[in-house]
Amino acid sequence: MEFMTGVEKKEVLELSEILADNMMGETIKTNGAIHTIRDMGIVAFVILRKREGLLQCVYEESSAAFDLKEIKEADTIEVAGVLEKNEKAPNGVELRMKEMRLLSKATEAMPLQISKWKMKTSLEAKLNYRPISLRNIRERAKFKIQEGIVRGFRDFLYKEGFTEIHTPKIGAKSAEGGSNLFKLEYFHRPAILQQSPQLYKQMMVGVFDRVFETAPVFRAEKHNTKRHLNEYTSLDFEMGYIDGFEEIMAMETGFLQYTMALLKEEYAKELKILGVELPNTEKIPTVRFDEIKRLVSEKYDRPIKNPFDLEPEEEMLIGQYAKEEWDADFLFVTHYPSKKRPFYAMDDPKDSVYTLSFDLLYDGLEITTGGQRIHDYQMLADKMESRGMTEEGMEQYMSCFKHGMPPHGGLGIGMERLTMKLLGEENVRETTLFPRDLSRLEP
Amino acid sequence: MEFMTGVEKKEVLELSEILADNMMGETIKTNGAIHTIRDMGIVAFVILRKREGLLQCVYEESSAAFDLKEIKEADTIEVAGVLEKNEKAPNGVELRMKEMRLLSKATEAMPLQISKWKMKTSLEAKLNYRPISLRNIRERAKFKIQEGIVRGFRDFLYKEGFTEIHTPKIGAKSAEGGSNLFKLEYFHRPAILQQSPQLYKQMMVGVFDRVFETAPVFRAEKHNTKRHLNEYTSLDFEMGYIDGFEEIMAMETGFLQYTMALLKEEYAKELKILGVELPNTEKIPTVRFDEIKRLVSEKYDRPIKNPFDLEPEEEMLIGQYAKEEWDADFLFVTHYPSKKRPFYAMDDPKDSVYTLSFDLLYDGLEITTGGQRIHDYQMLADKMESRGMTEEGMEQYMSCFKHGMPPHGGLGIGMERLTMKLLGEENVRETTLFPRDLSRLEP
Repeated sequence: MEFMTGVEKKEVLELSEILADNMMGETIKTNGAIHTIRDMGIVAFVILRKREGLLQCVYEESSAAFDLKEIKEADTIEVAGVLEKNEKAPNGVELRMKEMRLLSKATEAMPLQISKWKMKTSLEAKLNYRPISLRNIRERAKFKIQEGIVRGFRDFLYKEGFTEIHTPKIGAKSAEGGSNLFKLEYFHRPAILQQSPQLYKQMMVGVFDRVFETAPVFRAEKHNTKRHLNEYTSLDFEMGYIDGFEEIMAMETGFLQYTMALLKEEYAKELKILGVELPNTEKIPTVRFDEIKRLVSEKYDRPIKNPFDLEPEEEMLIGQYAKEEWDADFLFVTHYPSKKRPFYAMDDPKDSVYTLSFDLLYDGLEITTGGQRIHDYQMLADKMESRGMTEEGMEQYMSCFKHGMPPHGGLGIGMERLTMKLLGEENVRETTLFPRDLSRLEP
Repeated sequence: MEFMTGVEKKEVLELSEILADNMMGETIKTNGAIHTIRDMGIVAFVILRKREGLLQCVYEESSAAFDLKEIKEADTIEVAGVLEKNEKAPNGVELRMKEMRLLSKATEAMPLQISKWKMKTSLEAKLNYRPISLRNIRERAKFKIQEGIVRGFRDFLYKEGFTEIHTPKIGAKSAEGGSNLFKLEYFHRPAILQQSPQLYKQMMVGVFDRVFETAPVFRAEKHNTKRHLNEYTSLDFEMGYIDGFEEIMAMETGFLQYTMALLKEEYAKELKILGVELPNTEKIPTVRFDEIKRLVSEKYDRPIKNPFDLEPEEEMLIGQYAKEEWDADFLFVTHYPSKKRPFYAMDDPKDSVYTLSFDLLYDGLEITTGGQRIHDYQMLADKMESRGMTEEGMEQYMSCFKHGMPPHGGLGIGMERLTMKLLGEENVRETTLFPRDLSRLEP
């Protein structure tokens, strides 16, 4: 009988272990994928790609117990050798190769030059070879930063007393309804994929007061733009016992502050690789929807076409305005028109044309939609009726309001969009591991 | 122009704040849902449900500035009053109510007695009133512990150098293929819902070496049992540069150890509410598939019907055997037959009838399936061919192996099943917020 007792320390070292200890002159073992080989004749540089970065290995025929021809780009190997300082090498160290053990062989030449610092490759080509193009150091760093964003979201909300929930993605009915739903057959019953965890989040406010979820959402929208995906990861939270919808914006501001600090602290390497400068989140201006439309219209001499809608171009101008006038990367736009918001949005008691809601724009792109929700059963039932909706299939959702719900609200943040803006990318597919859009269903 | 500057301290106090400071005799403000009211005539006890627990409020006509008739069960209120010690009250404190502000009214009587310590309600009734039944303190505690499990999984893996990924749930092709897939139409193309992130995890091993994902998976299985769901949350990881599949089991053991420590430390309240005793994870026995079948057959005098399969009853006896012979709650069963494992499973080079794989049983229930995967392109192509599979639609997956993949393996853990076993529940629906099964598509 053998027993598993937990993770055991391995003989092979990771990059942080190599760099942390003063191991110069010592013989160590490590492993990695051969990122590239530069054969200079007398010596060759074998660059290993490891999860924490690159390690330069030096091959010399006289000291190595193997032939350079035994290895080539994209093979994975284990290697033993002596560590030496070299200021020109990545991280300032290199390994003089002695022994080598081949772990796996590549059988075909690379379709892309992933070892280039900046791949001169179109987005299309990168997506066509997605699992390969992501092996590029800069491509990979994007998704490490994305990890930091999601991690910051969760850790901040745990600290603020939120409970993480997991709600079903297959359902009979959706939060917003309508035509943007993917439909499927569920054991001979019609079903849909949830476009938002909205109704579940609200139901769970009655249980945990504050909840969050980080999960996929599905939108069958026929948009084919640089900022739309048909499946994306939504960072959602919902909080009860609020005194106003400003508390939701304050919570989001807190999340952004916490996350920027986390990125600075634990993802400095990746920020440096991508040359990212973190935005200012100390204070985020808030401005009313009708007010910012007026301001932008005046400043940029652009007539207001539709007082109840924001066009993408208008959003961009708003971003420009916020930067120019308030030196702000982020801007909360509040009080969106009621007719543009879903049934559960709380109308402004002072003027029911508008709602107690907001979008967060980041450099002119909407990355969050949020607001206060209706918590009174009768108000909710009346609003649904006025919109021609029935309670059918929403009995359990409605029952929450019959049985008492605190004033509450929340938001949803598009993970890929936030990453895109943080990294200064122009297309949301750049910050999506495997995008789903009108034409992409694979890989 | 107003600015958001982050989360501001609220005047109303949470339970931990009330309990942390020595505030006896002071007047404070708090809020919550009225869990129950016990009217004793001269005084009434108004029990508030807050996210961190219950708070007893005492109503006396002489000292309160409102009428008890203004409030009833399930209303949410804000209340001001004087804190006093009372050993008989939950957490040893109570609030003598002075002022009260009604936040929301319940309009109907509760369908279930959620304020009972143990609800004497069938699972069916609990699910039919899910958002209400979860307001029960014990029901809610289950999902707080579930949060701890997922949190432990992520935090442990971050520490071990894993990267979190988010892979698409809509796809053209699935890891295991076959009939257990939900099908949908994706912009006039046939598509499926992923039953596992398997192929994506493997592709990302070539990028990050170690990856994990916590996300929904979808299985159109027509099972209607106590342990099956058609949608569940899978805790998945995949790790490269392994020397053997034992490393995967060691990593899982490490996760379990870490998580049990986390639960003990940060979820003690919920463990106490549910009377949960944490299992022993210090050492987990491992035994071969064929060996444990023989041992169980001998000990319980039960003939082996099929040497290549485990029936649920047999799994239960294995659990019993592990407890009786090794005092073990968990048991790794290794070397499952190749024909029962998917095409990507690595066959045992010593005996290709079996694979370098394992299941983790918890008290006789499979909660994890894992193992080493094939990393050699030709071996993978041959195995696929021998199973009559084509590479069509899997070109990008296959390209990873052509372009070098380290030896690797991983696992998937059913979040709801692990929670179920930890809490000693008999039905996985007890530990699923909103179960999806053959008959349940709502709420």
